[in-house]
Amino acid sequence: MINYPGGIKVNAPAPKEKKEKKHIESAANRGMGFETDINDTNAYYLEKGLALIYKRPTPINIVKVDYTKGAKITHAYFEHQSTTDYNGVYKGHYVDFEAKSTQSKTSFPLSNIAPQQIEHLRNVKKHGGIAFFLINCYALGEVYMLDAEFVCDFYEEKPRKSIPFSLIKEKGHLVKEAYRPRFDYLPLIDEVFLK
Amino acid sequence: MINYPGGIKVNAPAPKEKKEKKHIESAANRGMGFETDINDTNAYYLEKGLALIYKRPTPINIVKVDYTKGAKITHAYFEHQSTTDYNGVYKGHYVDFEAKSTQSKTSFPLSNIAPQQIEHLRNVKKHGGIAFFLINCYALGEVYMLDAEFVCDFYEEKPRKSIPFSLIKEKGHLVKEAYRPRFDYLPLIDEVFLK
Repeated sequence: MINYPGGIKVNAPAPKEKKEKKHIESAANRGMGFETDINDTNAYYLEKGLALIYKRPTPINIVKVDYTKGAKITHAYFEHQSTTDYNGVYKGHYVDFEAKSTQSKTSFPLSNIAPQQIEHLRNVKKHGGIAFFLINCYALGEVYMLDAEFVCDFYEEKPRKSIPFSLIKEKGHLVKEAYRPRFDYLPLIDEVFLK
Repeated sequence: MINYPGGIKVNAPAPKEKKEKKHIESAANRGMGFETDINDTNAYYLEKGLALIYKRPTPINIVKVDYTKGAKITHAYFEHQSTTDYNGVYKGHYVDFEAKSTQSKTSFPLSNIAPQQIEHLRNVKKHGGIAFFLINCYALGEVYMLDAEFVCDFYEEKPRKSIPFSLIKEKGHLVKEAYRPRFDYLPLIDEVFLK
C-alpha cells in the first residue's frame, strides 16, 4: 500500500475505471482493487444504515511544510501502518480488520502481516472487540474471513511460513460476493462473533 | 490542527518539552498540548490494559510522489478530518470522541466543530457506539466530557453560536486531572454510558 500513484487520495476509493480494467491490473493494483471493493462495501453499509466502518488514513511522516503556499507539504514519506486497515462500529460492537490479497496459488504468506498488526489485533480481542482478516485468494477467486485469533496463533506458533488454502477453507468463512455489496461480510460477523 | 511544525510526525505525540513550556505556548500550541495529554492518557490506558484508543492519522491528499528517492512525497496537503480525532474499544464497546480546546472565557464556540463531525457522531450513536466530546476550557482550567448527543442537538438546533460554560458544567462531567493518566475519562464512560 506504499506505491500510490501521484494524485490519488490516500484513504479515498481508487478511480472507478480501476474495477473495469481488472484483467490487466498488476499485482499491486489488484490489491488496490480489493481495497476499493471493501471501501465500496463499507459505503453500502453506511448508506443502508447497517454499520459504520472506516478505512484508516495512511499515516504519513511530514518533514517539511511550505507555509508561503498555504500549508503545502513539500517533503514527507509513508509510514508503516502500525494498526489495521479498517475499524468501526456494528451493533455497538467495536470491529477491526485487515484486508489482504494474495497471488499465491496454494497459500497465504504470513510475510504479508506486520508483527505490530498481530499485536494490535491481540489487543482488540483482549478488550472485547471483534477482530478478523479478510483474505482475498485470487487463485481461488474467493475471499475468506478468518478470526484474528486463529491467524495470530498461527503467526506466533509459525508451524509454516504461510497458511495453506486448505486450512483457510477449513477454519475460515467464505464471504458472499455480489454486485452490491461486493463482499458482504456483516452476516459473517453475526455468525462467527455474535451468536 | 493544520499548522504542524516541520518535522513533527502527524499522529505522534508532540515532543515532551512542549508540556513544560505550557506557559509560553501560543493558542495553537495549547491545543496541541491538550492533544498530547490525551495521547499520553491513551498510552497509559493501553499500557495498563484498560482500553485501546487511537488517534486517527490526519488525512493527507497526495499530489506528487518522487519514486526516484524511495517514495518521497514532494507535494501534498492536509485534508479536513471528516470524522473525529479518536476512536477505539473499551470493554467491547466502540468508543469515538473529539477533543477540543477553547480560549474563550465564557463559552465553547460551535465554529470549532465541522458539520461532518456532527454527522459522524450521529452515525456512531445510531450504530450503538459511545460518542462524546472532551472540551478543554482553559479559562476554567477544567476539562469536561459532553455526550455527543447533547452537543449534536445543540449544534443542530443552534439556540446560540456557542455553548455557555454554565451549560457545559450542568450537562457535562468534569474529567479528573492528574499526573498520570492526565485526563482520566474512562470512569466517566462507565458512569455516563455503561450504567
